[in-house]
Amino acid sequence: MKELSLLEKIYKTSPRDDSILIGPGDDMALMQFDSTNLLCGVDQLIVGRHVTIETAPELIGRKAVARSFSDVAAMGGVPTGSLMTAALPPKTDESWAMAVFQGANEHAAKWGGPIVGGDIATTEENAQPMFTVTTFGTLPTTPIKRSNAQVGDVIYVTGTIGNSIAYHHLHFTPRINEAQLLMDSVEINTMIDISDGLGQDASHLATEISQLVIDTALLPLREGATLPKALSDGEDYELLFTSGSKPPEHLATPIGYVQRRTPSEPKVITTTGEDVSNLGWSHE
Amino acid sequence: MKELSLLEKIYKTSPRDDSILIGPGDDMALMQFDSTNLLCGVDQLIVGRHVTIETAPELIGRKAVARSFSDVAAMGGVPTGSLMTAALPPKTDESWAMAVFQGANEHAAKWGGPIVGGDIATTEENAQPMFTVTTFGTLPTTPIKRSNAQVGDVIYVTGTIGNSIAYHHLHFTPRINEAQLLMDSVEINTMIDISDGLGQDASHLATEISQLVIDTALLPLREGATLPKALSDGEDYELLFTSGSKPPEHLATPIGYVQRRTPSEPKVITTTGEDVSNLGWSHE
Repeated sequence: MKELSLLEKIYKTSPRDDSILIGPGDDMALMQFDSTNLLCGVDQLIVGRHVTIETAPELIGRKAVARSFSDVAAMGGVPTGSLMTAALPPKTDESWAMAVFQGANEHAAKWGGPIVGGDIATTEENAQPMFTVTTFGTLPTTPIKRSNAQVGDVIYVTGTIGNSIAYHHLHFTPRINEAQLLMDSVEINTMIDISDGLGQDASHLATEISQLVIDTALLPLREGATLPKALSDGEDYELLFTSGSKPPEHLATPIGYVQRRTPSEPKVITTTGEDVSNLGWSHE
Repeated sequence: MKELSLLEKIYKTSPRDDSILIGPGDDMALMQFDSTNLLCGVDQLIVGRHVTIETAPELIGRKAVARSFSDVAAMGGVPTGSLMTAALPPKTDESWAMAVFQGANEHAAKWGGPIVGGDIATTEENAQPMFTVTTFGTLPTTPIKRSNAQVGDVIYVTGTIGNSIAYHHLHFTPRINEAQLLMDSVEINTMIDISDGLGQDASHLATEISQLVIDTALLPLREGATLPKALSDGEDYELLFTSGSKPPEHLATPIGYVQRRTPSEPKVITTTGEDVSNLGWSHE
């Protein structure tokens, strides 16, 4: 079962109305709510997949929140609140669960979106503990959507990428402030946070007629990262965006450009012509 | 591990700010969001616990949404949108998952809170499929909180109660419209939806100085329900509330009254003096 193809099918069956400004398929949804626009999204974190049972519980809670808040940053939003659920097997040590929530509470509050509610359920023996974080946010300006890379844009990435698994994926800070600073300095045409892998996430920025060309020699590698793997490592939670203007150098590094493509051409290639549109985490 | 005691401990560690108008502990949270008040809450549905794997998938999706929307009704709110997640073992049949989402989509839209986003994750072999529904809502008037039964109030319940498991728990309609009609006709001091059992849920309406007295002879029993079990059956998703005024008879049935209590007395008793404060689903 492929997650993305299932999601796409599901959301085609979802009724729409005028209050849904951005529906499923972007980093978060955007709803009109009285006179206010509400960003909302939800992410699941499974122990054994996104973290291990040996991971420090405070870091499990931190990561659950950070992943969800990273989506807010990628929309150009600012988190204002969140909800957290836990599904725990009966044998779960209460102090472990408390430590997960404390790591989540502390960071959610610090990053501006305190946890205001949630739900705890008991699952079966031997089940993996699971958590969800739902985040709400506001949009200081207009939302930055996916699938809007313009021919002639330059591609940029914040921070460094690759080898996230060694340390970064448990310790990153969602790029909320950086997104706001970038939006203050340039017009961003399209943006996503790198969660599944640079190649694959970049493909979500392409349009019907635009192709992203990545110059791998320009990739700002994280310590321990190797070049071919940096295109597919994932869990960087850095912002990947395109713009027609040059943002301040300390905020982002140029890594390529956007050119015209025909429908038969891949969405993302390297400067040597390799198709990297599918590199990254396989949603199966 | 007791779910409620763990939740209480967790939420004591949760930082608060002025924008959180109602925090954890009520049916939903209420946040100030720009100039708008946002109701938000989340519920989990586990196959094997809240439904079985033999349950028709459309009814699983329907129930996941209905439970979450019932909380909106109990706050006096109206749903405006929702998010849904699924955590599915790798062997999950895609058409089964699609049917769950279709049942959810259809009813969420019909009841005014269309699904605008979500997330799908793959869990391990033999895991129980799990779903969450996050709901947002607006408050046409003021929120109806728990723990506010006033001495001299009469206790009311909508519909009928007991034996929900035979049919009702998969087919109920959240009492969103009834709550609005009730609020238009009388001042409701406190309200909850009956999910865990009448006795236990009633205990959440009592205050430090108020005690709910239930006249079991007055309970409007659902077909197949027996009196002692009607106090503990749960999953009724009817509204339980107290008021100093009499609502229209077709909307609610009086089932008791609220009197003064001392701190050592139980929160809910029957007219024969039996303590029923703990009757219902045990959150262990």
